Amino acid sequence: MNTPHPMHTATAPAFVRMLGNMLTWLDKAQAHAEQRRFDPTLYLGLRLAPDMLPLSRQIQIACDGVKGCMSRLAGQEVPKWDDTETTLDELRARIGRTIEHVNGFRPEQLAGSEAREIVLPTRQGDPLRFSGEDYLRHFVLPNFYFHATTTYALLRHAGVDLGKRDYLG
Amino acid sequence: MNTPHPMHTATAPAFVRMLGNMLTWLDKAQAHAEQRRFDPTLYLGLRLAPDMLPLSRQIQIACDGVKGCMSRLAGQEVPKWDDTETTLDELRARIGRTIEHVNGFRPEQLAGSEAREIVLPTRQGDPLRFSGEDYLRHFVLPNFYFHATTTYALLRHAGVDLGKRDYLG
Repeated sequence: MNTPHPMHTATAPAFVRMLGNMLTWLDKAQAHAEQRRFDPTLYLGLRLAPDMLPLSRQIQIACDGVKGCMSRLAGQEVPKWDDTETTLDELRARIGRTIEHVNGFRPEQLAGSEAREIVLPTRQGDPLRFSGEDYLRHFVLPNFYFHATTTYALLRHAGVDLGKRDYLG
Repeated sequence: MNTPHPMHTATAPAFVRMLGNMLTWLDKAQAHAEQRRFDPTLYLGLRLAPDMLPLSRQIQIACDGVKGCMSRLAGQEVPKWDDTETTLDELRARIGRTIEHVNGFRPEQLAGSEAREIVLPTRQGDPLRFSGEDYLRHFVLPNFYFHATTTYALLRHAGVDLGKRDYLG
């Protein structure tokens, strides 16, 4: 039997729900490309501004945020995944792999992670240090929804037939 | 003394942080408009797609999501605020008023709200029903960050000098 633990309840179900929604958005994007007869890999390079990251990176980073959160809260090494996706199918596979990663943790593995010290390396030098709780509230969740929303916005901007219900799932 | 309560820890600090970040984005947007000599009220009508809501509504809805969350979790009536803002200053005031609303709740007022039944009226008819915890995880947080990110994206798209650090604060 799995006993619920607050840090698991605050992470896994919301991640799995939103990642599943993202799969639906990509299905709709594929259908839109087929209907309009353009190559769906063109979505991967879309950007909202020239100095914002393209759709493929938005999805990779959303996935990596989830992967890192689950592993770090459980006190495990974060697995490294290369950013090699060049098609919608490969992005779908990455999302699917992320869902499997989340589902691989039992709630009790996150027990007590509110107070666990989380150390994040940065490119600038000094690492960021958080309690598990602050890491979740002020870093993981705002970032995850940032990259999910930017993905959604790029697809909406591209004319894909999505609405708020597709965002929330 | 305020005793921490998990549903307060999971809401108020993240809301106040992100709402404060949004004030900084609007300051930068104002400076950008002054430098480029355009009327900053033009930001309020910007949309990422013709059938997405404009910037003013993104901010109003982000604020209302926070207002409703705090009140509902505390078992209080949600105050009604009219959507009358037509300038950046008025949007700043709305954000400031939302921060005050959040700060008006003591942590213990949200104690036990994980299990409180939350009933949300919908335009379609049947209301949505959630536990307080599911309302927070699957509705409030994804929606709040959706509207914050869309505001950020609109300003980035408009050329305002913002980066990921401005998003996270």
